[in-house]
Amino acid sequence: MTTPNIPTEEQVLGWFDSLSNWGRWGDDDELGTLNLITDAKRKEAAALVREGVSVTCSRLLVPEMAPDVTSIPPLHYMVSTGESAPSEGGGGASDFIGVSFHGLTVTHLDSLCHQFWNGKMYNGKDAGLINNANKAGAGAIDTVRNGVVTRGVLLDIAAVKGKDWLDAAEPVFTADLEAAEEAQGVRVTEGDALCIRLGWYKRRQEVGAPTAAEGRPGLHAETLPWLRERGVSIAACDASWDVAPSEYPYLGLPIHKVGIVGMGLWLIDAANFDEVAPVCRRLNRWDFMFTVAPLRWHNATGSPVNPLATF
Amino acid sequence: MTTPNIPTEEQVLGWFDSLSNWGRWGDDDELGTLNLITDAKRKEAAALVREGVSVTCSRLLVPEMAPDVTSIPPLHYMVSTGESAPSEGGGGASDFIGVSFHGLTVTHLDSLCHQFWNGKMYNGKDAGLINNANKAGAGAIDTVRNGVVTRGVLLDIAAVKGKDWLDAAEPVFTADLEAAEEAQGVRVTEGDALCIRLGWYKRRQEVGAPTAAEGRPGLHAETLPWLRERGVSIAACDASWDVAPSEYPYLGLPIHKVGIVGMGLWLIDAANFDEVAPVCRRLNRWDFMFTVAPLRWHNATGSPVNPLATF
Amino acid sequence: MTTPNIPTEEQVLGWFDSLSNWGRWGDDDELGTLNLITDAKRKEAAALVREGVSVTCSRLLVPEMAPDVTSIPPLHYMVSTGESAPSEGGGGASDFIGVSFHGLTVTHLDSLCHQFWNGKMYNGKDAGLINNANKAGAGAIDTVRNGVVTRGVLLDIAAVKGKDWLDAAEPVFTADLEAAEEAQGVRVTEGDALCIRLGWYKRRQEVGAPTAAEGRPGLHAETLPWLRERGVSIAACDASWDVAPSEYPYLGLPIHKVGIVGMGLWLIDAANFDEVAPVCRRLNRWDFMFTVAPLRWHNATGSPVNPLATF
Amino acid sequence: MTTPNIPTEEQVLGWFDSLSNWGRWGDDDELGTLNLITDAKRKEAAALVREGVSVTCSRLLVPEMAPDVTSIPPLHYMVSTGESAPSEGGGGASDFIGVSFHGLTVTHLDSLCHQFWNGKMYNGKDAGLINNANKAGAGAIDTVRNGVVTRGVLLDIAAVKGKDWLDAAEPVFTADLEAAEEAQGVRVTEGDALCIRLGWYKRRQEVGAPTAAEGRPGLHAETLPWLRERGVSIAACDASWDVAPSEYPYLGLPIHKVGIVGMGLWLIDAANFDEVAPVCRRLNRWDFMFTVAPLRWHNATGSPVNPLATF
Repeated sequence: MTTPNIPTEEQVLGWFDSLSNWGRWGDDDELGTLNLITDAKRKEAAALVREGVSVTCSRLLVPEMAPDVTSIPPLHYMVSTGESAPSEGGGGASDFIGVSFHGLTVTHLDSLCHQFWNGKMYNGKDAGLINNANKAGAGAIDTVRNGVVTRGVLLDIAAVKGKDWLDAAEPVFTADLEAAEEAQGVRVTEGDALCIRLGWYKRRQEVGAPTAAEGRPGLHAETLPWLRERGVSIAACDASWDVAPSEYPYLGLPIHKVGIVGMGLWLIDAANFDEVAPVCRRLNRWDFMFTVAPLRWHNATGSPVNPLATF
Repeated sequence: MTTPNIPTEEQVLGWFDSLSNWGRWGDDDELGTLNLITDAKRKEAAALVREGVSVTCSRLLVPEMAPDVTSIPPLHYMVSTGESAPSEGGGGASDFIGVSFHGLTVTHLDSLCHQFWNGKMYNGKDAGLINNANKAGAGAIDTVRNGVVTRGVLLDIAAVKGKDWLDAAEPVFTADLEAAEEAQGVRVTEGDALCIRLGWYKRRQEVGAPTAAEGRPGLHAETLPWLRERGVSIAACDASWDVAPSEYPYLGLPIHKVGIVGMGLWLIDAANFDEVAPVCRRLNRWDFMFTVAPLRWHNATGSPVNPLATF
Repeated sequence: MTTPNIPTEEQVLGWFDSLSNWGRWGDDDELGTLNLITDAKRKEAAALVREGVSVTCSRLLVPEMAPDVTSIPPLHYMVSTGESAPSEGGGGASDFIGVSFHGLTVTHLDSLCHQFWNGKMYNGKDAGLINNANKAGAGAIDTVRNGVVTRGVLLDIAAVKGKDWLDAAEPVFTADLEAAEEAQGVRVTEGDALCIRLGWYKRRQEVGAPTAAEGRPGLHAETLPWLRERGVSIAACDASWDVAPSEYPYLGLPIHKVGIVGMGLWLIDAANFDEVAPVCRRLNRWDFMFTVAPLRWHNATGSPVNPLATF
Repeated sequence: MTTPNIPTEEQVLGWFDSLSNWGRWGDDDELGTLNLITDAKRKEAAALVREGVSVTCSRLLVPEMAPDVTSIPPLHYMVSTGESAPSEGGGGASDFIGVSFHGLTVTHLDSLCHQFWNGKMYNGKDAGLINNANKAGAGAIDTVRNGVVTRGVLLDIAAVKGKDWLDAAEPVFTADLEAAEEAQGVRVTEGDALCIRLGWYKRRQEVGAPTAAEGRPGLHAETLPWLRERGVSIAACDASWDVAPSEYPYLGLPIHKVGIVGMGLWLIDAANFDEVAPVCRRLNRWDFMFTVAPLRWHNATGSPVNPLATF
C-alpha cells in the first residue's frame, strides 16, 4: 500500500471549487449526486436480486442515553398499551416517537441542507433559507421522496485490514478503499451507493462506544477526489464518515463539508453492516440492490432510515 | 356486479377462527402474512423493474393540525439553522422530529402488536406484553427489520368506479376488488402487496379531510375472506382500511381486528397512490416492485414509512 | 363614561419613546417593571393575608386540541402507571409533560425577551441574542427566579359591565378600568399586579373559545399610558391582553409590543379569575397577596405559571 | 448525639399502618398532610414576611444530560427567535419546553399518586386509576391547585454538621434533625414545610453529581415517626429525600413509600437551598413564608416547581 499523500487544509479548501458539482445538473438542482442514479442504474440494481434475500443496513434505534449520544436520546412514550386490554373485545397499543437523528447513533440520511460553507449550502443556496419559520426551506429531505434504488457496494475495510474494528481516530485512505475493492473483487462505479464497514457498530455492541469527544474512525479528507471521480451517488458508513478528531481545524468535518456542500453528496451516518457483511461473505459477492426510503418529512434536514441490501 | 353478501357481526367474529393464521408458521411466529413473501417472490418483484422508475407511495408528513389529526400533530423543531451561519467557514442545520404516527394522516405500517382481541395479539401472545415498562415487548416493528420487498399490485378503485374519490362511509366490497382486477388486467397473487387507491388523499389535498368522526371510505369486513384467500402479505390503502363509521359496533374496525389479530396481516394506513397511479396508467401496468423499510425503532408499535413502487 | 380618545397608530408608535423605561433602572436591567416591587411592597402584600385563604389564578392545563390552540396542544405521556403495579410491594407512576406555552390557552408569564421591536427587546438588547444556539440569551425567565410577591388588584370588568363575558374584539379602555376601580372601591397603586377579568375563560368553559382568528376581547392600546402612570409591575388577564383583531396593523399587538419592549412590563396571558372573583365578592375586597413562581427554566422565553391570590 | 435506633425492614413496613393517615381526613381525601395547613397557619406564614425579601428554593432547570439524569434530559426547542427579527417593526421569540420531572435533578413536587404500595396509593385508592387512558386519574397534582402557603423551616444539616455537603449514602437521623433545630433555635410545628439542606446541590454545582447508582445522602427511614409526629405538611430536600443506596431492599425508598403512600406526605425533591441559607444566616432566622405553586397540569403525577421563601 502506497503512502497516502495527505493534503493540506488549504488544498482541501480548494476542493470546494475543483470537486464542485454546483451547476452541474442545473442552477436549481437539489438532488446532487443522486442525479448519477439513472433509470438504467436502477435496472442494473434490480438485476442484482438473484437470491431474493433482503437485509437491513440500519442499527436498532434504541431510546436510551449512551456516551456517544450527542443530543437528547430518542423519545418513546406509549399512548396506549395492552396492560388494561379487556379480556373480551378489542384493544390497541400506540406510541409517540421522537428523535433528533443527526449525530453518531441513529442511522440517518443527511439532506443537502444539513451543512453550510461560507453561508451557502449545495448549489449556492443561502443558508438563511433554513430557519425556524420555514424549517428546511431548501435542500430538504423530501427531494428524495421517490427513494434511492441503486447498486450498492460494500467495502468491508475492517475485514480487509484484518481487524474487528478500526480504532477511534483511525483514518481510511483512498489506498484502503482500493485495497478493499481488490481484495473483494468488486469495483465502485458511477451511480453506486458506497457502503463502508469499519466495524464501529460491532465495537459499540461489544465494548460500547467512546464519547463523541474521544473520536471515531472514518474516511480521511484525502478520499474526497476519489469519491468524486468514482461517481458515488450516496455513501453509507457504520461510523459517521469523517475520522475524528479532525486534523483540519477550520473544516472540522471535511467529508461532510466538501462532500455535502461542494459535491452534493448524500451521506448516511451510523449505518450497520454487521448483518450484511456475513451475507456478502457467504454469497461471495459484495454488490446488491441498495434501497433507501427516507420519511417524507416536510422541510426536514434529513431522516432516520433503514437502508436495505437485497441480494 | 353482484350484490355483496353482507356478513353479520357474529359471522365476522367467527372469522377470528376460520381465517386465523395462528400457529400456521409456528407458535412463536411474529411475521404473520409476511411469511408469504418467499425468496422467489422477492426475485419476482425485482424482475418487475423494467423501466427503472421509482415512485413514492407516502404522503408528505406535515407537522400541522388538521381536522383528521386524531392525536397531536407531528412535532418539528429546529435545533440549529442557517439564520446565523457565518459568511466565512462552516455551519449546519439540524432538527428534532416527533410523531404519534397511528391515525389517519401519517403513512405508517402497523406492527402486529397494534391490535388486540380478547386480550391477545396475533398468534396468541398476551396483550399485557405491551406495557409502559417494555413498550412493545412482542410483535414489535423490528420484526420487519429486513424490510418488505415484494410484488405490489395497485387497484385504483376510485378510477374504476369513475370517481375522483370515494365518499366517507363508502364501502369497498370483494366485487369491487375483482372488478378492478378485471378492468386493469391484473391479479393479486400469494405474497403480493395489495395497494388500494380510494382517492382519499387526493380529496384531502383538494377539499380537505372530514374529521375522524365524519368517517372515511374503506374496505368492508366482507373482503376479509378474499384477503386471506388471495394470500395478501401486506396491504396499503390511501384511507385507513376500515370503512367508517363502522356498521359493526362491537368490532369497530373489523379489517384491523380480524386482519391484524387473526390473520397477522400487515397494514399500511394513510398511503398516497396519487403519484403511482399516473405511472401505472402511462405504462399500462399495475404491478411493480413494492418496498417498505420501516425504521428499526426498538419495541415500537409500527413506524412511519415511505413505501416505494419501482417499475 | 367619557368617550375614549383613540390614538392613531403613529401616536402609539410614539409611546415606545414617551412611555419607555429603557435605562430607568440601569443599562443592564432585565427586571423592567418588576423593579417597582420593593421590599415594602412585598410586606404590604403579605399584610393583606387576613383570612388565610389561597386561590389559584391559573387555568387547568389540559393536553388537548381546541380551536384557540395556536401551536401544538400540550403533550402528556405516561412513563409508568399503576396498571401493572404489583399487589404486593412497591410501584410508581411518572410522566412526561411538554408545552409550547405561549398562545391563548395556557396560563403563562412572558419574559421580556418574548417581544421585539425594530430588532430590539426591552432596554435595547439585540433581538439576535435569542437564537437556537443559546435559546433566550437575554431577558429570559430566570430573571424572576425569586418570584413575584406583591399586592394584586382584580378588576372584574365583565361584572362591572354587567356581562358574563366580553365579546371577541371588544376593547377595554382606561375609562373601563377606572369605572371598575370605582365600582369595586379599590385603586391600583405603584408596584401592584393588575388582574383583569373579562370572563373569557368562563366563556371558554361554557361555550368554547372562538378560533384565534376570530379574536378575543382585551385592553385597547389607549390604556398604555395609564398602565405606565399607575406603575403596574405585572399584569394578568384571562384573555391575552391585546384586543383582537387589532386595529393597528403595523403594531399588531400594541400592549405586548409597547408594554413588553418599551416599558418592560411583565404580562400573564390566559389567566383564570373565575375562582378568585367569587372570593373577592364574598369578602368584599379586591386586593390580595399575589404570588407568581415561574419555573427556573434556563434561557426560556417565559414559563407556564399558577399565580396565587392569597387573602 | 444518641445512637439512632435503626428499625428493621419489618418494623418500617409496620409503619404503613401505625403512621397511616388513611381516612384521617375522610375517605375521599387526596390532600393528605396538606390538610394540616389551616387558614390560621397561612396567616402565621404571611406574618413572617418582615423584611419583604423573596428567595427561590428551586434549582436552575437546565436542558442537558448529566450523570444524575435518570430519564431523558429536559427538552428545549425554539419555535421562533430573534435571529431573523426585522430591523423595522415587530418580532417575537417563543419556545417548546418538555420535561420528565421525576428524578434527581429537577425541583419538583410529587403528587400523592406518584407512589404505590400493595397496589394502592394514599388513602386506599387503586393504583390502576393511574393509566395511559386517564393519566393520573386520582391523586393528581391539581389537588393542590390553590398552592401551598405555609410556614417554612430550613434545617441546614450540612452546616450544623460542619460540612460543605453530606456524602452519597450518608443518612440523616432524627437526632440530626433535632440537633439542627437546637443549633438554629427553631422548631418544626404542625403544618410546617420542612426544608432540609444537605449541601447536595452545592456539591453538584461544584464537583458534579455522582450517577444515580452511586447514591446520595438523605433521610433515614428512622425519621418517619418524627415527620408524622411533628405534623410536617410538605417537605423539601436538596437531594431526593431517601438516602441511597437503600438498606431496605424490599422498600427501596422508605420515605417515599411510607411517607407518600401511608402518610399522604407531600415531597419536593431536588430543591435548592443555597440561595436561602445565606439569607437565613444573615437574618438569623430559619423560618419564613414558604410558597409552592405547582402547574395545574391535568392529571399529572406532580409538577416542576419553584418554591419561594419570603422573609
